[in-house]
Amino acid sequence: MASSSESHRPSERVLVVGATGVVGEEMLRVLSRRGHGGREIHAYASASSSGRTVRCGERLLPIEELSDSVFREGDLVLLGVDAALARRVAGHALRAGARVVDNSSAFRMDPAVPLVIPEVNPEDLLGSPPPTLIANPNCSTVMLLVALEPLRRAYGIEHVAVSTYQAVSGAGRSAMDELRDQTRAVLAGEEPKPRAFPLPCAFNVFPHESPIDLDSGANVEEQKLLAETRRIWRERDAAIDPSCTRVPVLRAHSQAVTATLGRPASLEEIRASLAACEGIRIVDDWPNGRFPTPLLATDQDAVLVGRIRRPLSEFDRPEPQRRRVSLWLSADQLLKGAALNAVQIAERAAWLPRFA
Amino acid sequence: MASSSESHRPSERVLVVGATGVVGEEMLRVLSRRGHGGREIHAYASASSSGRTVRCGERLLPIEELSDSVFREGDLVLLGVDAALARRVAGHALRAGARVVDNSSAFRMDPAVPLVIPEVNPEDLLGSPPPTLIANPNCSTVMLLVALEPLRRAYGIEHVAVSTYQAVSGAGRSAMDELRDQTRAVLAGEEPKPRAFPLPCAFNVFPHESPIDLDSGANVEEQKLLAETRRIWRERDAAIDPSCTRVPVLRAHSQAVTATLGRPASLEEIRASLAACEGIRIVDDWPNGRFPTPLLATDQDAVLVGRIRRPLSEFDRPEPQRRRVSLWLSADQLLKGAALNAVQIAERAAWLPRFA
Repeated sequence: MASSSESHRPSERVLVVGATGVVGEEMLRVLSRRGHGGREIHAYASASSSGRTVRCGERLLPIEELSDSVFREGDLVLLGVDAALARRVAGHALRAGARVVDNSSAFRMDPAVPLVIPEVNPEDLLGSPPPTLIANPNCSTVMLLVALEPLRRAYGIEHVAVSTYQAVSGAGRSAMDELRDQTRAVLAGEEPKPRAFPLPCAFNVFPHESPIDLDSGANVEEQKLLAETRRIWRERDAAIDPSCTRVPVLRAHSQAVTATLGRPASLEEIRASLAACEGIRIVDDWPNGRFPTPLLATDQDAVLVGRIRRPLSEFDRPEPQRRRVSLWLSADQLLKGAALNAVQIAERAAWLPRFA
Repeated sequence: MASSSESHRPSERVLVVGATGVVGEEMLRVLSRRGHGGREIHAYASASSSGRTVRCGERLLPIEELSDSVFREGDLVLLGVDAALARRVAGHALRAGARVVDNSSAFRMDPAVPLVIPEVNPEDLLGSPPPTLIANPNCSTVMLLVALEPLRRAYGIEHVAVSTYQAVSGAGRSAMDELRDQTRAVLAGEEPKPRAFPLPCAFNVFPHESPIDLDSGANVEEQKLLAETRRIWRERDAAIDPSCTRVPVLRAHSQAVTATLGRPASLEEIRASLAACEGIRIVDDWPNGRFPTPLLATDQDAVLVGRIRRPLSEFDRPEPQRRRVSLWLSADQLLKGAALNAVQIAERAAWLPRFA
C-alpha cells in the first residue's frame, strides 16, 4: 500500500482499463484534452482487442493485455469496465498500492468508498489516510446533482421530481449499434430486432431496461438516482422521485426536473445562482426557442441548463412564497456523466495535477 | 339552423374536411372500422389534392373540392384542418345547419363550444338546444385525462405533474417526413436539415416547438394542457404542471405522470379503478419489463397505462397516508388524441349512432 507520506504524490503512470469501451475511449480523450497526454499512459482491454491501438490526443496507444501484475505503487487506474471486472481489477490495483477511480456500480454504495462529484462533495476526497479508491456516480445522478448544487447551497432542496430522456449509449457501444441498425431496418420497411434492449429502440421510447424492484416498482436506474443522491448529499431522507426512460438518442441524456427549494427564491436569484456555477452552461432563449438538447450537449463538458421557469401551478401562490422551479437539462453522459468526472476526481485528489 | 326537433336525428351524410392530412386519413379509417363506412361519406381537401382518392375501409373516395355551399342541414362535418381554416369552414357548415366536430385549437377555449372527451365529460354534449359545434381537445390532454378519469372519480385529484415524450406526427405529415429524412441523413454521415421543426429531430430530443409565453416560460402545448384540463374538469384551479418535449418517434405520445390524489388510496385500489375503465388498457408486467411504448400504442384505440407505482419518496409516508401515484402512458395521439375521439364525440352526441 502507498504509505501515507506518498499518498499525495501525483501518479506517474495512468492505466486506463476498458480502453476500447465507450467510457474508456472518452477517458483517453479527456486525459489528452486536459493536458495529461504527456504522462505515461497505458491502455488495457480484453484479449480480443490486442493488436489494436486507441487514440489519446495525437498519440496512438497500443492495447495492452491486462494482468494482475501490471499495477505499481502510485499508479492511477481509471476503470471503464463492468462491475464484476471492476471489483477484481480494483482489488489487484489497490494491493499493489495504486489509486483507482471506478466508473462502474461496484463500489458506489460501499460506505468505505467515497462517491464523488467534484462540484458537489469534493470534501469526501479528504480523509486520513486519504482514500485510494473512489467511485464515480451513475451518469443520471451526476448531471442532476451538478445542476442542482447551486440551488442546494443557496436555498436547500426539499424534493426533486425528475423524468429522464436517456440516450442508448448509457448501455454501451453495442446499444448504439443496435439503435443505428434498427433505425436502418425500420426505414427500409423491415422489422427491428431487439438485441441489447428488451424492446425495440428505433423510433420508440421505453422505461429504462434495468431490473425492477418488485416491492417499489422502481427500476435500478431510479433506485441509483435516489440512493446515490442520499450518499452524495449526506442526507438520508433526501426526497428524489425519478422516472427513467430511454429515448432513441445516440449520446447525451436529458432530464425534466422540478425542484422544491428549502426556502422561497425568485427566478432571478435562481438564474443567477445557476449561472455562477462551474460545470453549468445556461441555454435558455425563450423568444427563439433555443434550449438544451442532446445534440447540443454532445462533446460538451458542461451540464446544459434551460427552461428555468416556475411549474404552472406555482403561479397560484403569491410570488414571495414560491419555492418550486422547473429545469430542462442535457448533458453528455459519457463525459460529465462518466469519463470527465472520473478524470476530474483524479485531478481533485491531486493524483493528476492539472498543471504539473 | 337545425330546428330543435331535428337536433337528435342522425346525420345522413358525413363530410371529412382535410381528408388527406394525418388526422383526416385516420378519421376515415375510424369511420369504417366502427361501422359507419356504409354511410354517405365525402372527403374534402385542398385543390392541390383534387383528382386523388382516399381510402375509407374498402372504398376509395374521390377527393372533392370544398366550397361554402356543400353543407346541408343535418350533415356531420369532421374537421381535420388548421385553426384558421377550421374557423371559416365551421361558420359555413353551422349556418347551413350542419353539426361540426373540430380537431383544431380554434374553438377549444370558446366558452360556448363544449370541449369533450366522451369518457370524461359526456354531460357537456347535452344542452338545450344541444350544441352543434364540439371541439376535440389537444392530443396530450386527451390521453392524460382518459388515464386520470377513474382516479379522479374515485379519489379526486389535487395535483398532476406530467412530462411528455411526444411523437413528431403531432406536427403533421411533413414532420414525419422530416424525421425520416433527417434520420437517413445522419445515418449517411450528413448534417440533418431542420424544416418543420426549429431544431434537428433525428436522434435528438427538444422542448416542444410551440411558442413560449414570456411571462410563465410555458410553451403553448403546456398552456393547452392546463387550460383544457381546467375546462373539461370544470375546475378553475386544477393544478397541472406539464413539461412537454418532442422525441424522435413517428407516432404515439408517451407521458410520465405523477398524480396526487384527493384522498389516500392503496395501489391495489388504484389498479382496480384503472383496469375497470373503458378506454384504458393496462400494460404493466414488472418481472418481464413489459410496459407501454409508442410502438405498442400505435393503431390502438386504448390509452396504455403501466408502471403503476408509488413515487419513491412516497415510501417515507405510512401506507394509509399515501396519496401519490406514478404512471407511464402511451397512446396513439392520432387516434384517441384526435380522429377516434372526434368520431366518438359524434357517436355520443347521437349524430352518428354506432348501431343505426
